Amino acid sequence: MALEDIPAVPRNAQGIAAAVGVLKQRLGERLQTGLALRQQHAHTTTYIPNQPPDAVAFAESVEDVRTVVGVCAEHGAPVIAYGTGTSLEGHVNAPGGGVSLDMSRMTRLIAVNAEDLDCTVEAGLTRQGLNAQLRDTGLFFPIDPGANASLGGMAATRASGTNAVRYGTMRENVLSLTAVMADGSVVKTGGRARKSSAGYDLARLLVGSEGTLGIITELTLRLAGIPQAISGGVCPFPSVAAACQATIATIQLGIPVARIELVNALQMRALKAYSRLDYPETPCLFVEFHGSEAGVAEQAESFGEIAADLGGGPFLWTSKAEERTKLWQARHDAYWASVALRPGARALSTDVCVPISRLADCIAETEADIAKMGLLAPIVGHVGDGNFHVLVLMDMENAAEIAAAEKFVARLNRRAIGMDGTCTGEHGVGQGKMGFLPGELGGGVDVMREIKRALDPKNILNPGKVFS
Amino acid sequence: MALEDIPAVPRNAQGIAAAVGVLKQRLGERLQTGLALRQQHAHTTTYIPNQPPDAVAFAESVEDVRTVVGVCAEHGAPVIAYGTGTSLEGHVNAPGGGVSLDMSRMTRLIAVNAEDLDCTVEAGLTRQGLNAQLRDTGLFFPIDPGANASLGGMAATRASGTNAVRYGTMRENVLSLTAVMADGSVVKTGGRARKSSAGYDLARLLVGSEGTLGIITELTLRLAGIPQAISGGVCPFPSVAAACQATIATIQLGIPVARIELVNALQMRALKAYSRLDYPETPCLFVEFHGSEAGVAEQAESFGEIAADLGGGPFLWTSKAEERTKLWQARHDAYWASVALRPGARALSTDVCVPISRLADCIAETEADIAKMGLLAPIVGHVGDGNFHVLVLMDMENAAEIAAAEKFVARLNRRAIGMDGTCTGEHGVGQGKMGFLPGELGGGVDVMREIKRALDPKNILNPGKVFS
Repeated sequence: MALEDIPAVPRNAQGIAAAVGVLKQRLGERLQTGLALRQQHAHTTTYIPNQPPDAVAFAESVEDVRTVVGVCAEHGAPVIAYGTGTSLEGHVNAPGGGVSLDMSRMTRLIAVNAEDLDCTVEAGLTRQGLNAQLRDTGLFFPIDPGANASLGGMAATRASGTNAVRYGTMRENVLSLTAVMADGSVVKTGGRARKSSAGYDLARLLVGSEGTLGIITELTLRLAGIPQAISGGVCPFPSVAAACQATIATIQLGIPVARIELVNALQMRALKAYSRLDYPETPCLFVEFHGSEAGVAEQAESFGEIAADLGGGPFLWTSKAEERTKLWQARHDAYWASVALRPGARALSTDVCVPISRLADCIAETEADIAKMGLLAPIVGHVGDGNFHVLVLMDMENAAEIAAAEKFVARLNRRAIGMDGTCTGEHGVGQGKMGFLPGELGGGVDVMREIKRALDPKNILNPGKVFS
Repeated sequence: MALEDIPAVPRNAQGIAAAVGVLKQRLGERLQTGLALRQQHAHTTTYIPNQPPDAVAFAESVEDVRTVVGVCAEHGAPVIAYGTGTSLEGHVNAPGGGVSLDMSRMTRLIAVNAEDLDCTVEAGLTRQGLNAQLRDTGLFFPIDPGANASLGGMAATRASGTNAVRYGTMRENVLSLTAVMADGSVVKTGGRARKSSAGYDLARLLVGSEGTLGIITELTLRLAGIPQAISGGVCPFPSVAAACQATIATIQLGIPVARIELVNALQMRALKAYSRLDYPETPCLFVEFHGSEAGVAEQAESFGEIAADLGGGPFLWTSKAEERTKLWQARHDAYWASVALRPGARALSTDVCVPISRLADCIAETEADIAKMGLLAPIVGHVGDGNFHVLVLMDMENAAEIAAAEKFVARLNRRAIGMDGTCTGEHGVGQGKMGFLPGELGGGVDVMREIKRALDPKNILNPGKVFS
């Protein structure tokens, strides 16, 4: 997305200067204005331009968050919540300037309730940070979007990743949360009950709101027991369609697969080169099963039979931890492996999600489009959810190539929406997908806008994101 | 709850008369004003007083729904969505009069997508109606609140029931929905992708909104495969605490129990008398496992060992359908069995939900309260979720008894909230729980009110519910 395509946000230079001045007095060293830091706090992960904020505030408490929101509200300055900066659609950019509110110092694990399989954390704690602290409890937090993102940021973008087919997304795994709203009020959306019918689902409203309705400061999360046994492996298929059919059959048979990841032929080539995996350069499924010793063996055998029926295989699986780790490290390195296909290129990472019955068609049409447009763009997918990613590798000096990539992304998104899917399964809207939301949701975007106006009438929370 | 305790809603008699007049012309026989029908469309299921609407409109299409909402909005008349009238907290009452919008003629099963494990239905279709039509597909809709409620009503109250511990609640099982909003716009919240990060979660906002934000007309629901095998049975325990510990251990060990229902000693006495079950009058767990033949046998054996370790048992289980059906019929008849304990009594059904680590304490304190207050009140619980119900049997001629029951309910709700739980796990707020919501959510109720004002500025959609 070129800078001129990103909706502009009017810049309130005077208000921002006033807010930054007051915050400097109130926060001292916790407010910084150096250029390098400001640039690092704007979008850096894909090719969306970097739009730095005017200052970065490091919150160390809910009180700090209230101070930043309160001062910015008073002066009409934007506040952009920042976790680890790993979001992919420009969420942390500051198109109208303002203050980046860095949550990375709020990392306390407040409580672990092992009997209830839940914990409460501050929003800046990362998922790996949480799992490291949970290690001795026999529990883990299963949502794994790849990056070591902050849990607040993962909630704000409704993140998911490889485990979602079994454990759900942030939508299903946030029991409740606390947020500082635009008016400075601190709202807790509920307690720790596993279900509730007590009024509007404010937790779900804030999950996925991308910092535009409130600043998430605390989360109560569901945890899962570390499985007694894990089995997994890689299974090659003659075609993407066969791999998708195997996925559908696996889910229809009720095999509780924990991960089922498609890697297309080009991505397999990249992985082989980068991670020295010894597999054919055909579409593969990386799968993993969680359960009892007997259960995961039975599940792996059943999956192997499904694959064989569809011309896939051999399905080589293992329950040895070190072998599985190597496989999943390779899967997680897909991004870097892809980038290594074209040194010096910049990656455009985009995601869509469709009903799984349409997945094979959607990927086939997308691969055809990639070939026709002469792009270099591997595909990986969380196919149990119908979600896949395309990483378009671009020479940023080549305007024609960038234009082609943008056209490709637009076609991909419209294709997914046309198949009753969505323009984003897990990355969020940010700036990059704003243009596709009206086509997907029509009047639903107006409802979002009315909610935004009601809860943030001055439009200070992450303006210029989700919708304009 | 006495009539004087229910927050009043100002009655716009002139506007209602005008709206009913116009609707009579527009809808003809689909608009009815007979008293019996109007009373039947107001609250009838527990002891909350009946507050009939001024008219009942039978919608046969989205256009009819738009007509009713549009005319009522123009004249400032309330619109109360009505499914089957089985809600328990006064949701369908018309405290300010207006038009009951009966959805029971909108019962089409619009599409079944077996490969995607989803279907799309009109909101008036009931869950049993849906499951009857799904029978030949190998799929079923797992949410079972007991009553044969409409799917739109189940979504509106965020219903759940016995299967929720495994399959989730309406929150997790509505992929997307279509609703007519207060301004007459028809909003579709998304497509059929199993996950999405495309903006605010409007589906989750409408699920549980109890007809106050929009009238749900269509739903896309997740389906589950009918399990290959089912095992289940009843296990007696020496105490509620032991039964709760067994539940916690079962879930912590990752045994994917499909149903785990606590029945306390008094409720067992009622069931024995009503359903001729041959079990001791001690707390029991009714459990059910879904999976492969080997899987459900393994799960039942594991559960039996857990129970024995805690002094429970014997756990007699079966995978024979007719025996299981008899058990679950008895569990589903708990309401009628309880009422039969005291012929002529009226039942006050209330539900709360707490973290499961607090469940044993919460039920023990509640049983002590029942005894101390001299009430007759059996308890059943979806204990895998920490959710339980108390059915207080009252002589409606005895004011002191009613006052005691109300005091008991208030204490129960405050107890649950004090244990980090909620005043309602699945019944919803309606009128009956309005008084407890501020104590549970504080400023969260203000956020709800702001959303309501933004989306329904004239307050025509189910006024006088959830919050005042």
